[in-house]
Amino acid sequence: MKMAQRVEVHRVGCAGPGDLSEVARLIESGELKPREIIAVMGKTEGNGCVNDHTRDFAATQWCHLLAPHLDCSAQQVALQVALVMSGGTEGVLSPHFTIFSRRWEEVDDSASTAKRLVLGIAHTRDFLPEELGREAQIDATAQAVRDAMADAGITRNEEVHFVQIKCPLITSARLNAALQRGAVPMTHDTYESMAYSRGASALGVAVALGECDRAAIHDNEVLHNWQLFSARASASAGIELLGNVVIVLGEAAGALSPYRIGHTVMQDAVDAASVRRLLAHQLDLDVQAAEHGPAFAASRPQTANPHPASRLVNLLAKAEASPDGHVRGQRHTMLGDSDIQATRHARAAVGGVLASIVGQTALYVSGGAEHQGPPGGGPVAAIVRVNP
Amino acid sequence: MKMAQRVEVHRVGCAGPGDLSEVARLIESGELKPREIIAVMGKTEGNGCVNDHTRDFAATQWCHLLAPHLDCSAQQVALQVALVMSGGTEGVLSPHFTIFSRRWEEVDDSASTAKRLVLGIAHTRDFLPEELGREAQIDATAQAVRDAMADAGITRNEEVHFVQIKCPLITSARLNAALQRGAVPMTHDTYESMAYSRGASALGVAVALGECDRAAIHDNEVLHNWQLFSARASASAGIELLGNVVIVLGEAAGALSPYRIGHTVMQDAVDAASVRRLLAHQLDLDVQAAEHGPAFAASRPQTANPHPASRLVNLLAKAEASPDGHVRGQRHTMLGDSDIQATRHARAAVGGVLASIVGQTALYVSGGAEHQGPPGGGPVAAIVRVNP
Amino acid sequence: MKMAQRVEVHRVGCAGPGDLSEVARLIESGELKPREIIAVMGKTEGNGCVNDHTRDFAATQWCHLLAPHLDCSAQQVALQVALVMSGGTEGVLSPHFTIFSRRWEEVDDSASTAKRLVLGIAHTRDFLPEELGREAQIDATAQAVRDAMADAGITRNEEVHFVQIKCPLITSARLNAALQRGAVPMTHDTYESMAYSRGASALGVAVALGECDRAAIHDNEVLHNWQLFSARASASAGIELLGNVVIVLGEAAGALSPYRIGHTVMQDAVDAASVRRLLAHQLDLDVQAAEHGPAFAASRPQTANPHPASRLVNLLAKAEASPDGHVRGQRHTMLGDSDIQATRHARAAVGGVLASIVGQTALYVSGGAEHQGPPGGGPVAAIVRVNP
Amino acid sequence: MKMAQRVEVHRVGCAGPGDLSEVARLIESGELKPREIIAVMGKTEGNGCVNDHTRDFAATQWCHLLAPHLDCSAQQVALQVALVMSGGTEGVLSPHFTIFSRRWEEVDDSASTAKRLVLGIAHTRDFLPEELGREAQIDATAQAVRDAMADAGITRNEEVHFVQIKCPLITSARLNAALQRGAVPMTHDTYESMAYSRGASALGVAVALGECDRAAIHDNEVLHNWQLFSARASASAGIELLGNVVIVLGEAAGALSPYRIGHTVMQDAVDAASVRRLLAHQLDLDVQAAEHGPAFAASRPQTANPHPASRLVNLLAKAEASPDGHVRGQRHTMLGDSDIQATRHARAAVGGVLASIVGQTALYVSGGAEHQGPPGGGPVAAIVRVNP
Repeated sequence: MKMAQRVEVHRVGCAGPGDLSEVARLIESGELKPREIIAVMGKTEGNGCVNDHTRDFAATQWCHLLAPHLDCSAQQVALQVALVMSGGTEGVLSPHFTIFSRRWEEVDDSASTAKRLVLGIAHTRDFLPEELGREAQIDATAQAVRDAMADAGITRNEEVHFVQIKCPLITSARLNAALQRGAVPMTHDTYESMAYSRGASALGVAVALGECDRAAIHDNEVLHNWQLFSARASASAGIELLGNVVIVLGEAAGALSPYRIGHTVMQDAVDAASVRRLLAHQLDLDVQAAEHGPAFAASRPQTANPHPASRLVNLLAKAEASPDGHVRGQRHTMLGDSDIQATRHARAAVGGVLASIVGQTALYVSGGAEHQGPPGGGPVAAIVRVNP
Repeated sequence: MKMAQRVEVHRVGCAGPGDLSEVARLIESGELKPREIIAVMGKTEGNGCVNDHTRDFAATQWCHLLAPHLDCSAQQVALQVALVMSGGTEGVLSPHFTIFSRRWEEVDDSASTAKRLVLGIAHTRDFLPEELGREAQIDATAQAVRDAMADAGITRNEEVHFVQIKCPLITSARLNAALQRGAVPMTHDTYESMAYSRGASALGVAVALGECDRAAIHDNEVLHNWQLFSARASASAGIELLGNVVIVLGEAAGALSPYRIGHTVMQDAVDAASVRRLLAHQLDLDVQAAEHGPAFAASRPQTANPHPASRLVNLLAKAEASPDGHVRGQRHTMLGDSDIQATRHARAAVGGVLASIVGQTALYVSGGAEHQGPPGGGPVAAIVRVNP
Repeated sequence: MKMAQRVEVHRVGCAGPGDLSEVARLIESGELKPREIIAVMGKTEGNGCVNDHTRDFAATQWCHLLAPHLDCSAQQVALQVALVMSGGTEGVLSPHFTIFSRRWEEVDDSASTAKRLVLGIAHTRDFLPEELGREAQIDATAQAVRDAMADAGITRNEEVHFVQIKCPLITSARLNAALQRGAVPMTHDTYESMAYSRGASALGVAVALGECDRAAIHDNEVLHNWQLFSARASASAGIELLGNVVIVLGEAAGALSPYRIGHTVMQDAVDAASVRRLLAHQLDLDVQAAEHGPAFAASRPQTANPHPASRLVNLLAKAEASPDGHVRGQRHTMLGDSDIQATRHARAAVGGVLASIVGQTALYVSGGAEHQGPPGGGPVAAIVRVNP
Repeated sequence: MKMAQRVEVHRVGCAGPGDLSEVARLIESGELKPREIIAVMGKTEGNGCVNDHTRDFAATQWCHLLAPHLDCSAQQVALQVALVMSGGTEGVLSPHFTIFSRRWEEVDDSASTAKRLVLGIAHTRDFLPEELGREAQIDATAQAVRDAMADAGITRNEEVHFVQIKCPLITSARLNAALQRGAVPMTHDTYESMAYSRGASALGVAVALGECDRAAIHDNEVLHNWQLFSARASASAGIELLGNVVIVLGEAAGALSPYRIGHTVMQDAVDAASVRRLLAHQLDLDVQAAEHGPAFAASRPQTANPHPASRLVNLLAKAEASPDGHVRGQRHTMLGDSDIQATRHARAAVGGVLASIVGQTALYVSGGAEHQGPPGGGPVAAIVRVNP
């Protein structure tokens, strides 16, 4: 007899960033056990940039919802559950929460040793504003990735398929406090600080997973040397925390979860072919069926299960405006648009691409893919239910 | 001996809405003959909404460019050439101009009678603000469509594959003038007036092409009865004109143009399958080759020809946020976003979908598909070069 | 011996829409008694339009903060306390909450009978989407204003100086539900529904206060006949409620509150003169001192009291883009701006005007003044501390 | 007999960035002589940021309008006339052009020696992207200011009251070209490059006018040391040029112009008092009359002369969001707003403040006041007609 991990994944819609009524129903019905929840990855409908308070709002609502179940204060919930809210559901993207719960079960020695979904979480310490975007953040993140791999029961780098990080940004208030101390942050621009924080976090993942050589990375590579990247990192910056939260998603032999996970890299924002190959070849999904599946009637409840022919739970993807200003050799206008931030453009476009592949719009597409995949592209992971 | 039509199509990039340097080079080289240009369909990089002056700017530059060649004033150019500028290149979309030129050549009786691309243009009279979005605009548009079909040499409705219309909107100044006359426009909202004008124009196309019964259409169907639509209409509203300009694109037997055109309807914003079928089955395009084609280097000139494996000249498509607030049964947030207009979201998403199919981003994707295709979907036409 | 009303007003800053730390400190110190709070008027930093979730977020935080003090659930707090959150702090405006608390004290017959600040609150029933912007909303609002006057102890219309209303808007979801029932809302546009709801609410105030003749008002006057308006109404639309909440602010003889309130009407968005007259002549405030007061150091806590020379607690004002497209005969561009909603422009401009008069930026400036003051102008009330 | 300068100033409205119909009328009537025009300062209605093509559009229209009068090509007009288009008319601000024309007249020795308006212009060479925001731009600008002073006939620094500069920004295309050359621009962010270019230009003015010691300025002071500023510089960045254009406005004894000019500095965005003092004490304007003047009817032509009681021609002002995040000690939200750029907020607020002082909205308020006045404040100049 030994213990094996069983991960359950629920994808749940909402009517707004403060609406957890569907989650509450799952808890009441017993289908979702609050004490087993270890991570929530949400897409909320704000602008995904500096002043997107929908992330904070949703996280706060999760804390209020779970506190009585966890016998702790609302503030303490965030210490126990990795709450990663990513803002921005531009275009067809649909706001939703992906809820990961986990429990350990006894299995006997004859149990299957097939690879199945596992996950683990970890936190870094809080960062000072001047540490963001620099080696301090890179190293602390790399260590947290290793901690989360241990928590997940993953021992080999290649079993990691997606590392989700929530990282801080520099607000005006934090900037001024730092400047008064004589500190020199990487940038004075609040929006740009999000990019630095994401970039350094991604390089931390790359170091932990052996994708980049730590010795080759210095402060001035961040947001400059685009040859350095992780093919599995996904980082979202937000105003609601001061340290990094790390979620490692991967596979381990013998886990009991009824899911598999795989990953690929979109080479640019319109690279549907790579995603289709991931689904068809690595995860054995009938892509034709997924795409052609009958459209859901508008009146169908948002939380209904996806088309039965499709076993896809979610795609987890990063999107960005190609930093050289071109996609497939043709000029784009995302970087010079002072009305709509480039990350919003990128999520809308990549969200359309991915939704057209899988026939579903409640997808986790996060903007700003600095050092996350090649310039203009980004990592994509897919979680699929295994055939019974 | 008889006369046959030869249409040439150039797709040309630009560095900004006022940049026609590449067009000037084509003229200087003799490849493009100014006197043969009869229509230009541009995508310019403004917001595509009420205060998008990039449309007017681009149209003005075209007038200044062509005036000396046409021996007329800049103002008179717009009377001779159908200049349709559609604003909004959100996401991966790339600003560009599609230039249609036409000449008549003698052919002998043994010439091929294969169907090839033809086009024609027509104008309506100027409209009063209170006529926009109502039967007056519908009827005048229907007549102009018939006129443009005659100009194109098309006699049968099914030979029409795309009808592009540029139509007016109601500005604050026009609204106040109308109100002072005691007139009652369909709306007092400038942004909403664009939707009414596009909707009535599309219904005019539907009437002309026999897709809707004229007797069934009254003022109050416009923007209300979504069962009424044209599968071939594309309407863009703009501040720079007071009447409708109509461009009919179709096929006629015996034309000499080295292009074919076909059309389909996207059933919703992520319906890639319909477009792939159009390209593969109607137009004999190797979709796999197009999508997988090698990415162009960023340094490659924007006006370079597309991947040799692809013969696609352009896709002409309409995009809109589904009016019921859902795509494939899941909630979208485009209609309630007060920071980004819904048409901008829709272009970004559909632009991503289409670019991922054809591996090219200089596509004509226009926002606001009221009565143009089914609710949430829209017509798509493809122009492809025939194999020599 | 008889009972007299004492109203206390606290104006409190915040670091974000979810930050009530300063309020919590006031409660802990005993300066603010939770059970005496009857109304909160907040300015939160969202866009103030349809998808401004900062209003809902702030209101939710207030509910969680007060629930343990009121021995009720968070949801029930909103039934006891009038929480009016107005989004949008464009330009120099500073997010803050104005908290009204009230208690009744015994006074003997020799007490002063000077006029002092009083207030009262009331609620309407919930509205159906198709009732918004129509007579149903007007009449229910008028009755609620009368109820709130009674609650405030005000018997004469001229003693009312400001009526703040929070009213619902039509979301995409509510719209679709209504359409499926066969109902016909005033508009299908979510942003425009805010204007209809504010307009009808303001007309309800005008009827209750005798500023307009009820018999002269029909559905089709709403947002059309700008001659009908209240000089004392202020309405904010929000996603977080389905009925109107009404707060009446006025003066009554013998109240114990250490405040006076007065009102005026800005004739247009730059009419500083009217506000200066209100402060100097009605409320005996030294306007020169207020404006010239020494600038506060940036490091000074946001909640510090204003310049000692100024006794101003807050200005409560409505702002709008002049519907005829002109201010002082010169064209403005607010109504045709598809990147920034007109209400945001108007708040920024009027916020600048008012802050330059009183030397303070934490002002309650609310956008969208339909039937609230003359077209392009709006009511302004001032609350000032009486000299001891 | 000697020669004296006569400057004429016309302020002219427009219906859009491409509308010069009113200017054309002034030329046709003979009131404005094209060959005497030496500078135009326009406010156009774009976003005033990177992708504001209304500036380029307006400048292009001016070139096409003047070319036949100046017997040169449209491109050559910009070399003869200083065309400074500043984008952004947020809030109440009204788009308009201020046209400066100049001629030299013979005067006898008994002519008045009173100080009157004079102006001069100069150009720097084109800059490389990596020179923007650095000493190269500072020094070239300082020299151009001295050249423009000589052109204006001004010999003493204190006679200079306003220096308007139009300066370049870094586009994505220019950035990539620079990076490929191995150059290191100050920033990779197109929006931020506007701030660097404005800041260095302003420091160039400060050096030329003796407001800052050249030896104390190095590259790393730009956008960091806010103690260094000019009280008379106004810089606008735009996409349409590669070098700086400089316009010096001042006074000289014996000039024949019927105008005076003076300047002050707003200490923060709501400092109306400084402006009122400038008008009343330096320029002898009846501020009460200006503010209280009868409102113009909406129907009055936009180009009508201002209220007769007011002799104000225009205010020329810079506006910015205070970089410490506070105005008068209270938090503002302009710097963290990812939906509306901070410069737009600032123009809207300061535009409201100034319009409320002078009762007129066609004011030249330009955003981004880096090193132009103290942090959060900015220079303001006023041009007034002298009493006959």
